[in-house]
This record gives sequence, structure tokens and C-alpha cells, in this order.
Amino acid sequence: MSVTQQAVYEPLTEITAIKLSKKLQLFSEQEALTCREIGDGNLNLVFHVTSDQSNRGLIIKQALPYAKVVGESWPLTLKRATIESNALLEFAKYVPQYVPEVYYTDETLAITVMEDLSHLQISRAGLIEGESYPLLSQHIGEFLGNVLFYTSDFSADAKAKKESVKSFINPDLCKITEDLVFTDPFFDHDTNDFEPELKQDVEKLWEDVAVKLEVAKLKQKFKTSGEALVHGDLHTGSIFADSHTTKIIDPEFAFYGPLGFDLGQFVANLLLNALSQKEESRNVLYAHIAKTWEVFSQTFSTLWRNEGRDHYTKTEGYLDYVLQRIWKDAIGFAGCEVIRRTIGLAHVADLDGIEPYEKRIATKRQALRLGRALLLSQTTLSSPAELEDLVKQTA
Amino acid sequence: MSVTQQAVYEPLTEITAIKLSKKLQLFSEQEALTCREIGDGNLNLVFHVTSDQSNRGLIIKQALPYAKVVGESWPLTLKRATIESNALLEFAKYVPQYVPEVYYTDETLAITVMEDLSHLQISRAGLIEGESYPLLSQHIGEFLGNVLFYTSDFSADAKAKKESVKSFINPDLCKITEDLVFTDPFFDHDTNDFEPELKQDVEKLWEDVAVKLEVAKLKQKFKTSGEALVHGDLHTGSIFADSHTTKIIDPEFAFYGPLGFDLGQFVANLLLNALSQKEESRNVLYAHIAKTWEVFSQTFSTLWRNEGRDHYTKTEGYLDYVLQRIWKDAIGFAGCEVIRRTIGLAHVADLDGIEPYEKRIATKRQALRLGRALLLSQTTLSSPAELEDLVKQTA
Repeated sequence: MSVTQQAVYEPLTEITAIKLSKKLQLFSEQEALTCREIGDGNLNLVFHVTSDQSNRGLIIKQALPYAKVVGESWPLTLKRATIESNALLEFAKYVPQYVPEVYYTDETLAITVMEDLSHLQISRAGLIEGESYPLLSQHIGEFLGNVLFYTSDFSADAKAKKESVKSFINPDLCKITEDLVFTDPFFDHDTNDFEPELKQDVEKLWEDVAVKLEVAKLKQKFKTSGEALVHGDLHTGSIFADSHTTKIIDPEFAFYGPLGFDLGQFVANLLLNALSQKEESRNVLYAHIAKTWEVFSQTFSTLWRNEGRDHYTKTEGYLDYVLQRIWKDAIGFAGCEVIRRTIGLAHVADLDGIEPYEKRIATKRQALRLGRALLLSQTTLSSPAELEDLVKQTA
Repeated sequence: MSVTQQAVYEPLTEITAIKLSKKLQLFSEQEALTCREIGDGNLNLVFHVTSDQSNRGLIIKQALPYAKVVGESWPLTLKRATIESNALLEFAKYVPQYVPEVYYTDETLAITVMEDLSHLQISRAGLIEGESYPLLSQHIGEFLGNVLFYTSDFSADAKAKKESVKSFINPDLCKITEDLVFTDPFFDHDTNDFEPELKQDVEKLWEDVAVKLEVAKLKQKFKTSGEALVHGDLHTGSIFADSHTTKIIDPEFAFYGPLGFDLGQFVANLLLNALSQKEESRNVLYAHIAKTWEVFSQTFSTLWRNEGRDHYTKTEGYLDYVLQRIWKDAIGFAGCEVIRRTIGLAHVADLDGIEPYEKRIATKRQALRLGRALLLSQTTLSSPAELEDLVKQTA
């Protein structure tokens, strides 16, 4: 698109967002447009621009040069907007059906103009309300199978992959994960946030050497293992869905990381939702976990067999080894995610919304037991069925 | 140094090399200089510039835009000269005593002007002649302990490390290792080079699924595991030495790779030399291997305890785990190196110089057995003493 890019960053307003939409010729000249800022204002501005005439709309997402969390504000690179749009474009090469279409990007303004998904619902909100999203796990499994295979060394050209690794080096956003997922919740750090009733449980965790040793290994893996392009923040709040569509958004944390990372975070968030549900409503979540793994491993295996470029993709036993390692790592990453979403800085509404309070505390205790069990069961837990058993044992 | 950099690459001659030395004021105006090109002409030009008056000299190394191997010529990035000089400068931050001093670099000309080490000997040549280099393993252990610790996530600032990872992304040179160390020798590829008498042994190797599975895992580790800045080609031909000095040269393959990689290649080359020696002369090589590991692990451990920045460096058991993994990986990488130096494209004089021919073939057969045994013993071989036993078992 040949639009002159602006030379200086400045935050858009609802008026300049409409102007930009017109300038990009994304609506016809005559259409009257309405614009609403719908972001939560912590990290990004999100403008929803709609035509008053037609039903058409679009989203303009603009990164803010700071993050506002717990009242404080710290500087945060605008480059994350470029990472996000490049990740969406890269994902779209393999699975365009599972990401919003990108219409335009501007590095200086740190904006991505993209498909309006407001007819869909954020899956975390839906799951909390009891939506089942029958195709969610099928789609996430296909997304992960395709993206992880095609961006890995099993498929990608060695030199092209290294250039891509370079372009997705993402120090600022990775640092957030390194601190908030892998470090702070396991030490007595200021960023942690938990109810006083959990203090004893949390202190026990901080003294649990076996658990910390596993987290240390996973943190090192996260920091050093550039296996494939990962979304980096694939929780249920990063997924729009309805009963037949799934769209993955917000890959500003994308980088080349461990093959099991996204899978672990997604599974953890399904588990957190399961814990928040009544016993009899949990089966749909367990089924989603099993289906995600089944579809992912089938998709990945089929691509490996048909399109594996590395010579060793033909070596007997190698695919099984890789899949086992992905599963094992995913279980470990899920353990970290379950714990950090319970006592770390960024909570999930699944747990925080549980009423009454006593039940919320009891469920968070179970979440801590589950996180610990996941971290200590990485090598023994061999299937989604065993994972389901493990959850039940922590009740 | 404020010297105007040249805008276009062109190969130096002995005359322009002298001119450059004068221009850089590395000799006094009046000194008469002599220059000899001493490179092997395959990858680089190497000019040795000396003063006729004093004993002083320097080395000008210039990358050629192609590689000449087995009569063929293929293009090879000039950027490797920048990688090499940046690696030397990075190493010098921690262990200046073990690398040549860099006086000047020019990215366009792809040159590094550095300390003259011609009073030392390439350690491969010396070891073949029976030199013992009593401090070689002490020095290499210290070099590896310092460089690997300080450039790893256990010490380095997370963001600074990622910027460094980016600047050392080295697709062309890594590709050479991926092909010549981890792939070609394990398949029937054109680049392989071995005596007809070894054909049966080699074909057996190509069909050895257990071995190939281990090499596949190590190749994936090499391609994806950016743990620390590694030299990338630390064989005995990349080390100048005498009885009290050790200098590591030629880090043009440097990149952020697995902690055990350099150690594995160095150990492998000591093992190859051991195989080429009479039984009674091998102890000095075994002692070097044991000492390298001892000094490396002590150095790394002391730095970890005193200067570990990552919170988990205080977690009980983590250091032991990391050291065990480095050792295990090093054994695996050593297995690949022993095999590729026996049947791959780039041989070592240690084996190729063995006379008579029958003995050479017998030793190469042992090298293949040893390489295989190393690859299959990664998890069971727990010390240098056990490694020595393993070598003896392959006799």
C-alpha cells in the first residue's frame, strides 16, 4: 500500500484514526465512519472503526510507549507493534484462517490495521460463561502444528530461518515473560499478588527446591531454545472464537522459542478454566486439551512425513522423540503458567471471579498443587488422559 | 583508530598490506617492512608483516569472498571477518591472555589486524610431533569457563545478551558445520572422503539408526540452542601454543550455541591425536582431557557461585545439573567430530599422517568405533576416567 509513512510517533485519536482509515482507502470516500477506542489502555490503543452505512469495520491497534501495570508506568519498546504485525503475516503464510488479516502497518506510528473480529468473543470470557467452542481445540491444534513445523529447522531453510530468528529477537517482551512467568512467582518478589490466606502455601512453594530446579530448566529453555516461531502469549484471552471460527490475536510476544511453549500456555489456561468450573462441566475442557494434542501431533506428524527437509526427518524414531519432548516441555510450561496466573502479577478472571471467596481460595490452592504436580510430572505424564487424572488427584 | 575505511572490497597484496601497516602507524615511519602471505589460500589471505630493524611483527588476516575446497569454489560471506574480530574482542573482555590482541578491523575490506603469534606453534602440529604443551588444558579450561559463563544467561543481562546473540547470528558458517559435521558423514553424500577399505564400516554407520538418532538431536541442539558465545571451531588447529602460552585463533564460526560444543570439539581432537600416538604416549592426551574438564568445571562453578546473576543460580542442584548436561553434550559433540574428521570432507593430519597405510586404516576403524561409542554413551559416561576406559575398549 503506497501511503506515506509518518516520521514521528504520536498516539492516534478517534478522529485521526478515522482519517487514517480514509487515507488508506479501506472505506469508500462517501462513507460516514464511527470510531471507538476499545483498548484497556494499559499497553495499546485499540480503535474500532465502523461504517455507518455498511456493516464493515476494521481495527487499528497502536502500541503505547509504556506499560501501565499496578498503577505504575514503565517504558516499553514500540518495536513490539512490528513484531506483532510480522508474526501475523508469518502465521498467515501457513494458516490464514486462524489470524486476522493485516491491511496495513506503520513502524513509526507502531500501528497495525487489521480485520475487525468484533463479531467473535474472547474465548476466556466465553469459557467462563460456559461456552464450549466445539472447534477451538481443532483449530488451535492445526495452528500450532502448521506454524511450529514450518518455522522449525525440520522444514525451514537453515539460512532463511536464522534471518527470521534475527528479525524476531524480542528482548523487551521476552523479559516480561522471563520475570513474570519464570522468576517472580517462585521468589518473594514485589510483583506477586495473592490473597493473605495463600501466604503459607506460597512460602512453601518458594522453599520447594525440586520445583524451582524444574522452573530453572524451563526458564533456560525459554531463554535459549530458538526452535520455532512461537506466539509467546497464547492464553485464552489471545483467542477470539465462536462456534465455528477461531482467530488468534496479539502476538507481540512472538519470538523463536521452544516448540512446547505455546501449547503449554494454552493447556494451562484451559486447566485454569476447568478448575473454576463445576466438576460436571469440566469434561469439555479436558476434551479440548486431548483434542489440541491429538490434532497438533497429527498435523505436525503429517507435515514432517510429507515435507520434512532436514535429512534426519527420515530417521526412524526421531519424530516420536521430538513429539515426546514437545509434550514434556508443554507440561512444564503449563505448570509455570498455572502458578503464575494464581499468585503472580497477571491473574485470570477464571480464578479471580470465583464466588464465594472461600471457594476461590480453595480453588487457588488446588491450582498451586496442580502447577507443582505438573512441574514434577514432566517425565512421567505421558498423555492427556494421565493429565486429566493428575488434575483430579489435586482436588 | 581514526583511519578512513575503504569503500570497496579488494584483496590485499603484500605491497598494500605493508602500506596499510604504515598507515595504521603500527610501525614507525622509518622502519623497513617485509611481508609474506602465509595463508593456505582456501578461505583467507594471511599476511605476516615484520620489521627488518626490530623483531616486531603483526598479522593481517583478510577473508576471501569464496571458499576453495576439493578444487571447487563456493561463495562465502565476508561478514565472517567481522564475526571473527568481534569474537576475539568479546573473548578478550574475559580472557585477554588466551587470544591475539586485535589492533584494527575494517568491515569492508574484511580484515583483522592482530598480534603476531609466529613464535608459537599450531598445537595440532606440535601434538603430532610429540609436544606435550603442559599448560594447554589448564588454559583451554580457563578460556571456556570464563567465556561460556560470562556470555550465558547465568551471568549476562537478558536484553544485552539478546542483542549480542543477534550480532553473532552466523548463517553461512553455521551451515558449513551443520552439513559437514552433523549431516554429510552420516549419509552417502558427495563431500565424504574415506579410503575404500573403510567402505563397509561407513555403510554400517549410515544404517545405524541409534547413532543417527543421537546425531539428529545434537544437530537440532546446535541449530537452536543459543546458550553462550562459542568459538565454533575449537580444534587443535585453531590453537597456537608453546610450553607456557596458549592463544586461540580463528573464531570465524563463532555464534551463540550450546555450552558443550567447543569442549566436545576440543576433546575430540585430543582423542584423535591420542589414537594416532603409540599406546605409551597417550597418557598425556588423556591427562589433558581430564584437566580441561577439571579446570573448566572449577572455573565455571566459581564464577557461578560468586557472580551468578540469574536468581536460579542460587537454587540447590542447578549448577550440578548444568555441568552434567554440558559434559553429556560435549561427549555427543565429540562423537560427531571424531567421525567427521575420519570420513568427512575435512580430515586431520593426526590420522592422515599415520604410516604405514594398514595402521592408518586400522586407526581410522577405531576412530569410527570410538565416535559411535561416544554418541551412544552420552548418558552413561560420567567422567574423563570413564572416557579413557571407553577409548581403550574401542582398541
